[in-house]
Amino acid sequence: MTGGSRRCVVVSTLAEASFYADHGFDDILYAYPFPFDKLEHCAALSERLSLFQVLLDHPKALELLSKRPLRAGRSWHVWLKLDCGNGRAGVLHSEPEALRLAQAIAKTEGVELTGVYAHCGNTYNCNGVEAIQAVAKETTTLTLQFMEKLKAVGINCKSSIGSTPSCSHSIKDMGQLSEVHPGNYVFYDVQQSLIGSCRMEDVAVRVLTRVIGHCPHRNQLLVDCGWAALSQDGAGKLPSGCAVIEGQPDLKLLSMNQEIGIVEPITGELDYSKYPLGSLFKLVPYHVRYA
Amino acid sequence: MTGGSRRCVVVSTLAEASFYADHGFDDILYAYPFPFDKLEHCAALSERLSLFQVLLDHPKALELLSKRPLRAGRSWHVWLKLDCGNGRAGVLHSEPEALRLAQAIAKTEGVELTGVYAHCGNTYNCNGVEAIQAVAKETTTLTLQFMEKLKAVGINCKSSIGSTPSCSHSIKDMGQLSEVHPGNYVFYDVQQSLIGSCRMEDVAVRVLTRVIGHCPHRNQLLVDCGWAALSQDGAGKLPSGCAVIEGQPDLKLLSMNQEIGIVEPITGELDYSKYPLGSLFKLVPYHVRYA
Repeated sequence: MTGGSRRCVVVSTLAEASFYADHGFDDILYAYPFPFDKLEHCAALSERLSLFQVLLDHPKALELLSKRPLRAGRSWHVWLKLDCGNGRAGVLHSEPEALRLAQAIAKTEGVELTGVYAHCGNTYNCNGVEAIQAVAKETTTLTLQFMEKLKAVGINCKSSIGSTPSCSHSIKDMGQLSEVHPGNYVFYDVQQSLIGSCRMEDVAVRVLTRVIGHCPHRNQLLVDCGWAALSQDGAGKLPSGCAVIEGQPDLKLLSMNQEIGIVEPITGELDYSKYPLGSLFKLVPYHVRYA
Repeated sequence: MTGGSRRCVVVSTLAEASFYADHGFDDILYAYPFPFDKLEHCAALSERLSLFQVLLDHPKALELLSKRPLRAGRSWHVWLKLDCGNGRAGVLHSEPEALRLAQAIAKTEGVELTGVYAHCGNTYNCNGVEAIQAVAKETTTLTLQFMEKLKAVGINCKSSIGSTPSCSHSIKDMGQLSEVHPGNYVFYDVQQSLIGSCRMEDVAVRVLTRVIGHCPHRNQLLVDCGWAALSQDGAGKLPSGCAVIEGQPDLKLLSMNQEIGIVEPITGELDYSKYPLGSLFKLVPYHVRYA
């Protein structure tokens, strides 16, 4: 994932950032709109690590940073979050405010504009390579155009876009960006195979679950995997229910409560002798994030 | 919840059981179909606590217990899980197997039949007091009938049913049961108010979330509460989106990704001056279990 180094990780919580920092990572990007209540926690990480990077999309966040200078010789490393019509966080690329904020970051003492960051999370709504690449193209183009505007006012910094679908089918223009930042691609999942990022055989994660109950009066069996283990991401989204049961195309993970899943055949009668109590299923999760 | 004592708690995972055991609780019911891979963990808790109780619904689980006698003077305390047509775990009340299994538990050396346990989780599909009480009545009646069958073969043990809706509107016959075991009622939530277990003003839990972004180009704002904090239980189920935003009837928690929620007005334009960055909302969760 990091090529054996302990650098270049992106996290979305300070709990993750602290976990990685405690395990020797010293280049961490906290890719989250700068949270006002966590200034001191971010300052501590910035003073401790060789490179702790934060992200912001509002002048008020910059104001906070400028009022909390880091210890001598240290700067806040700041990415400007840009919304290229992707519907997530970020200042809109076309707003004059976006350029003004970039300039303000670059000018503020004790703060360094490290780069511009756009997340094309709307590729998750795509179906197929063509649609994915259209979003990747638009996000890349708008980001690069913004970089040109920065250059015209004398600012040079990094540029970055990301999302697993776009990075799985990267387009040529993405070569002009400094970085890309996919996350899910480390494992992939059923959702990514449906979006078109990968094939089912590329998915590298399984959740093992054990048969804990036979319910012949309902033609069902119970497994020890509820939504606390698998999340509810897949509910109602697959012909095989909440996940894919590997090697069992006739079975469906019908529903889950907190700690228990209900499995039934897609058609016909369950042959319980094939699934004794204590035996295992391998589930391929719909979405890997929480599983 | 336990009247100041450290007794009479019900858990659904061994992680919870160990947590309570480590904090001085010594009467814990592990209300989960006995998991074959966790025999030793359960044995350790049974030998350590004054009362650790397990639950089973299959002769194979009993066989496991009988092959793992506890240290001298200790018995396995076993509840038989009964399915009174509630569609969860348990042996069906009307199957001859149910009575046979109860008798087998009672007869097995080193094992004690503590009670019969039915969970009327299907009250969660109810709407209103009458429907809840119909399920409570049926589950109670079938459980008490099963207790009569036990008595006829010389077995006396406890009886128990539960679910927050049924215990919130208990019926007279439930007075004949030894125990009831609601869980959610400690806090209640929006779902319970819709089922009819409580009123919205009875809900005793809030999730605080902070405004972390303004998106005037989309008439939305962002909060630092995604589904990792709130779960996806409420998605698509409420006019106010994924949760109720207390004191803000005009706002909707439209959607959530892992760590961020998107809030927008139900109609009209957002007045951002009312919701500065860093300000707080109180969310009433749809379902409290995971929030």
